[in-house]
Amino acid sequence: MSRVFNFSAGPAALPQEVLEQARDEMLDWHGAGMSVMEMSHRGKEFMSIAEKAEADLREIMAIPDDYKVLFLQGGASSQFAMVPMNLLGGAVGDLSGRADYYRTGSWSKKAIAEAKRFGNVNVVADTESDGKFTTVPAEGSVNFDSDAAYVHYTPNETIEGVEFPYVPDTGDVPLVADMSSTILSRPIDVSKFGIIYAGAQKNIGPAGLTVVIVREDLIGRTMDGTPAMFDYQTHAKAGSMYNTPPTYAWYLAGLVFDWIKRKGGLGAMAEVNQRKAGKLYAAIDASGFYHNPVDPGCRSWMNVPFTLADPALDATFLAEAKEAGLVTLKGHRSVGGMRASIYNAMPEEGVDALIAFMADFEQRHG
Amino acid sequence: MSRVFNFSAGPAALPQEVLEQARDEMLDWHGAGMSVMEMSHRGKEFMSIAEKAEADLREIMAIPDDYKVLFLQGGASSQFAMVPMNLLGGAVGDLSGRADYYRTGSWSKKAIAEAKRFGNVNVVADTESDGKFTTVPAEGSVNFDSDAAYVHYTPNETIEGVEFPYVPDTGDVPLVADMSSTILSRPIDVSKFGIIYAGAQKNIGPAGLTVVIVREDLIGRTMDGTPAMFDYQTHAKAGSMYNTPPTYAWYLAGLVFDWIKRKGGLGAMAEVNQRKAGKLYAAIDASGFYHNPVDPGCRSWMNVPFTLADPALDATFLAEAKEAGLVTLKGHRSVGGMRASIYNAMPEEGVDALIAFMADFEQRHG
Repeated sequence: MSRVFNFSAGPAALPQEVLEQARDEMLDWHGAGMSVMEMSHRGKEFMSIAEKAEADLREIMAIPDDYKVLFLQGGASSQFAMVPMNLLGGAVGDLSGRADYYRTGSWSKKAIAEAKRFGNVNVVADTESDGKFTTVPAEGSVNFDSDAAYVHYTPNETIEGVEFPYVPDTGDVPLVADMSSTILSRPIDVSKFGIIYAGAQKNIGPAGLTVVIVREDLIGRTMDGTPAMFDYQTHAKAGSMYNTPPTYAWYLAGLVFDWIKRKGGLGAMAEVNQRKAGKLYAAIDASGFYHNPVDPGCRSWMNVPFTLADPALDATFLAEAKEAGLVTLKGHRSVGGMRASIYNAMPEEGVDALIAFMADFEQRHG
Repeated sequence: MSRVFNFSAGPAALPQEVLEQARDEMLDWHGAGMSVMEMSHRGKEFMSIAEKAEADLREIMAIPDDYKVLFLQGGASSQFAMVPMNLLGGAVGDLSGRADYYRTGSWSKKAIAEAKRFGNVNVVADTESDGKFTTVPAEGSVNFDSDAAYVHYTPNETIEGVEFPYVPDTGDVPLVADMSSTILSRPIDVSKFGIIYAGAQKNIGPAGLTVVIVREDLIGRTMDGTPAMFDYQTHAKAGSMYNTPPTYAWYLAGLVFDWIKRKGGLGAMAEVNQRKAGKLYAAIDASGFYHNPVDPGCRSWMNVPFTLADPALDATFLAEAKEAGLVTLKGHRSVGGMRASIYNAMPEEGVDALIAFMADFEQRHG
């Protein structure tokens, strides 16, 4: 067996130790005589797995007691509807509830499109320029609607590789963040947020699990006509077991949380992540051959898009990289070029190997 | 390692060969150098896994070409809303669309409660008697509303162990079935149904995947105010990849489909399942100590509830069964007693072991 360095944007690489543990426990979890995926979600074995996962996540993120942690299905795309349906009040169809949205890339655009079906969406900042997103608004430059039910933003745009270097201050208006691609990459102050949601398939675990961290006072305001499964209250009341949760994904998330604890927590993650991103951007900027278009003040630690001087070399780059054990480097079809996603589970050696390969490729083809 | 016989109603036992294959491929799928759960859902490796799973399911169920097969999230509980939202037309809140529902147990009750939030639900048959559900309406005894958008029923009630021995003939009105606990247990004629949906965690694979088989003409009638993620058309157009699907669960479902093919398909499954259920019911009926309350004409092949003559012995029964390697036999809290769920993955030896244990227990305690 030869493991590759996998730069996929999501589903993404997982820590090898986590996969090894899952492999070893596949047919018999801790002497239970069954796989975790065969366990009743209401049995004491799985309940212990679920509770430990939540406790570990609360510990590593320092989540305050007045926040619920929900383990749901449906991805961030479901949250794009659940957030307005849970916070705008009224009824589906009346569109009178107001919310402020930042528009800073492909994922915030999707969030806005879905929210418009449920309310009055005010785009408070739009960084699109010539069809591209390469920056975020300066801190403090945005005026919010004091009557908005919430402000939504996307701290990291996975496709464009654009990241907010600050958390917007929205005063008393709850701040909602799609943190799919940055959650667990560094410490954050959860108390600044009303809701944090994240698809698991980047920094948490396998696809099919969505973690939602929601301040308790924001639960129970759901608009009439919301499906029970889209109501945070349904899941908060039932400890995320209103119906059968994605048990195996929840278990794997727990293994990842435990791995993060063993590695030193989010402070340690941040240190390595910043170093990984820093050296990759430095290599790109020092080169005349590779180019990253993003404003240096808001470059993503997690997703590093870059282009080659000659796009005709893209296919050769990808083929040679794959030969070198560096895979899934193709950029999103909407942006082109390359993208190296370097989440927590990408070891620093993977980034070093990519940088060395890039230098060698430039020397041979540049 | 010692594997138990696990009678869980869901998440439920999986074929040991499937788990062994998943274990062996955990860190490196077919030389890709990564786990299936690390693969981009749009990469050629995962696409090949996804396509083979769908092709195998179509083959073993003989699904006609004018049906879409969707691999979704959210469980049957999400389908309870998606079915009315997709079929009743109009807009969320107007409640004018009409649908007929059978009320035959706990799960059909939940489906009805959710559908009432979106339309005018007509309960065409209700088998509740003294708070219990132990039978289904006689074939041909129900009158349907010819203007209903659809008729919904639950072919097998997992909690009560009640099963329809026939498929209702609803004429031109589309028939919708929650087949979570019977799908793949025997051959069915898919062309009799408008929509079949099933949570995976019983006969398909791990929790977190929902399979929906929908006739194409029923797609695109969605009511205004339906979240994009709850619109069948969203997923049908995108090959179930509108957003990141639950890739690992999809892969495991594919391994199960392949296992069913190797075992001889649904005809072979039906033969074994009927034999397993038949001998367990025979043992219960021959005993004066165990009792199954369900009308013999509609006893479930999949979920066999039974009570002990003296409920004070329940805890001893469960403890001794566990010692004998027979686990998760406790009945649902709403029914009490015991329940043995014996899906495809429960080997006949497991049922034989249960019957032998029950006889021995009766001899010692009866």
